Amino acid sequence: MGTNRLEAFSDGVIAVAVTLLVLDIKVPPEGSDQSLLHALLHNWPHYAAYVVSFLTIGIIWINHHAMISRLARADHSILILNLLLLMSIVLLPFATELMAAYLRASSGQALAAGLYAGAFLLMSLVFSALNRHILLNRAHMLRVELPLAERRRVLIRALTGLIPYLLATVLAVVSPYVTLVICGAVAVFYALPIASGGSPAG
Amino acid sequence: MGTNRLEAFSDGVIAVAVTLLVLDIKVPPEGSDQSLLHALLHNWPHYAAYVVSFLTIGIIWINHHAMISRLARADHSILILNLLLLMSIVLLPFATELMAAYLRASSGQALAAGLYAGAFLLMSLVFSALNRHILLNRAHMLRVELPLAERRRVLIRALTGLIPYLLATVLAVVSPYVTLVICGAVAVFYALPIASGGSPAG
Amino acid sequence: MGTNRLEAFSDGVIAVAVTLLVLDIKVPPEGSDQSLLHALLHNWPHYAAYVVSFLTIGIIWINHHAMISRLARADHSILILNLLLLMSIVLLPFATELMAAYLRASSGQALAAGLYAGAFLLMSLVFSALNRHILLNRAHMLRVELPLAERRRVLIRALTGLIPYLLATVLAVVSPYVTLVICGAVAVFYALPIASGGSPAG
Amino acid sequence: MGTNRLEAFSDGVIAVAVTLLVLDIKVPPEGSDQSLLHALLHNWPHYAAYVVSFLTIGIIWINHHAMISRLARADHSILILNLLLLMSIVLLPFATELMAAYLRASSGQALAAGLYAGAFLLMSLVFSALNRHILLNRAHMLRVELPLAERRRVLIRALTGLIPYLLATVLAVVSPYVTLVICGAVAVFYALPIASGGSPAG
Repeated sequence: MGTNRLEAFSDGVIAVAVTLLVLDIKVPPEGSDQSLLHALLHNWPHYAAYVVSFLTIGIIWINHHAMISRLARADHSILILNLLLLMSIVLLPFATELMAAYLRASSGQALAAGLYAGAFLLMSLVFSALNRHILLNRAHMLRVELPLAERRRVLIRALTGLIPYLLATVLAVVSPYVTLVICGAVAVFYALPIASGGSPAG
Repeated sequence: MGTNRLEAFSDGVIAVAVTLLVLDIKVPPEGSDQSLLHALLHNWPHYAAYVVSFLTIGIIWINHHAMISRLARADHSILILNLLLLMSIVLLPFATELMAAYLRASSGQALAAGLYAGAFLLMSLVFSALNRHILLNRAHMLRVELPLAERRRVLIRALTGLIPYLLATVLAVVSPYVTLVICGAVAVFYALPIASGGSPAG
Repeated sequence: MGTNRLEAFSDGVIAVAVTLLVLDIKVPPEGSDQSLLHALLHNWPHYAAYVVSFLTIGIIWINHHAMISRLARADHSILILNLLLLMSIVLLPFATELMAAYLRASSGQALAAGLYAGAFLLMSLVFSALNRHILLNRAHMLRVELPLAERRRVLIRALTGLIPYLLATVLAVVSPYVTLVICGAVAVFYALPIASGGSPAG
Repeated sequence: MGTNRLEAFSDGVIAVAVTLLVLDIKVPPEGSDQSLLHALLHNWPHYAAYVVSFLTIGIIWINHHAMISRLARADHSILILNLLLLMSIVLLPFATELMAAYLRASSGQALAAGLYAGAFLLMSLVFSALNRHILLNRAHMLRVELPLAERRRVLIRALTGLIPYLLATVLAVVSPYVTLVICGAVAVFYALPIASGGSPAG
């Protein structure tokens, strides 16, 4: 089977997931005591989380594109691993809202931030597993033959991309702000020209 | 008419339906008495339902892909049956939320679980009807001619895929957990390499 | 400009609009006095509205497909009229929820049903305007030259498709059920093999 | 990398964003004191905002189409700038609901309207930055070579499109209605045949 509909379906799911992020940004209810300005400023964790998650999912999409475009065709195992990857991506709007809602809570903030970074970590792990499966077990399905050394290089670069998310997950017990800053730094780093084609996840 | 836009529209609808599943996973309201950890753990039926429904819809999508890729073109009857199939798929986020919300309720749990498995059964029935229509009534529209024996084999395999959903629907009166386990087992089974290309629905 | 992205964007918008219909079907709140069965049965207008609107939007999509596939390319005027058509289609989940919520209300039910059929009428009018613009003003952009008589035949058939929606809108003052039945009958009629390629809207 | 999946992903995100606008239009709760007609009429800012935002996003999509179709391929910098553009477009359903909810509020209405026009301004700025990057820095990736004078002409026309949004943002302090009217006038102007291919944003 070709990769056209695999790409179309993945594009669709990722596009909807990234757009649902805006539903986490709520309009302050009218007629409350505080001013609209104050209410909007008070919601800053939701804007920060929106930017970090949007960028991260966008970079996942870019890497997904690169990964799938290497394939000439796909088999059942690739479709199922891709489905697991999409399942982990679709969780991100929930993880994003959770983190933003609890960032300044008196309890639960470490757990919420840990789950946020943990969701990115999970997504990166599934991405790596799919990438590894394609490059090592399904090398005969690649559009262009890649030398083993080159394939290993791609996988090792992807694995180094897991480290910041592992750190961000663990450091949530220190402070949820540290987690948010690490996740944001990862997104910005891989958006920079220097990191073209790299992690989150790829 | 070609099948390109039929595939694009179906991909779009299925992608949105599968992504809407995440809206069923609610962030626990801040400031309640119980801890965030407790509140999140308490929501486990929603996570289980998310995984089962996501996998199931994903496998439907894979089978839909296989079914439509056999076609060289589509006519009005195929478009309308495909529309009925999409209508049954789009109901799944509702059925999923219903099952998860009532799994531990003191009343209504058998009905909710029965409707959950019943929604999968309905979807499988419409899929089978479309597949049967294509393979038996529209065999002249197939991209590659298939011998009648082969077409019958495809249809019989699809019909055996209905049995677990029928069981899961009926056994909801025994326990909604049995229903959930059967639906989950079906999804996992058809995700395994051994079952490549099989049911839910195909 | 080619029609590929016009089709892709329209497919996307229509696919999301049709899938959002499921958000109107609410899970009954747990722990109320009435049984789940009773609560679910009480919601029947939402299921009826879901089926009628889903089928109708699906048939619009089929007709949209037929209309755009006649075009070799599109210009600014076609893009803008298509945008107005999408704007009227995206209103349908709102109109659907409005009609279902007020079908049995003690007041407002005629208005809600009138707006429901009115939304279909509006959508059909915009569809007809776009179709007319393509067939009469942009005939030189058609993929295959159509004789004027044939183009007129298409347009007249489309106009006759407006009549039931006009009736359904007006008869809302008699009874909202009449409106719902007419809209449903239109959807079923155009889904039948005999009506291949006809209205809603095309 | 080709531009096919870039277009598909952008089409998906823009299609979902424009369709989510309908979620801002709420069905009036049944059983309130005021009549349904009164309640619906009272919601007019939401309908006006829907039309203005839908048209504007639609025109952005048309311009996005024109911008990307000039490209033979895309590199990392184009993908990232496009991602920032999508991030600004996805904010529009939030900005639209904010403006509509506060248009007649006793306080906060200037801020809400300013943020509404400001969101359009931000989106136009990112669009211009991407367009500038493509036409000046990535001219060698264009499908057809464009003379520098022609490329400058495109960019200057796009910059003039920023002026009304700048005005609309500033004039929110005078009246939020002025802001809404300007944004609406821009959308209508660029939808007219005379303005084919112009701003919002392009």
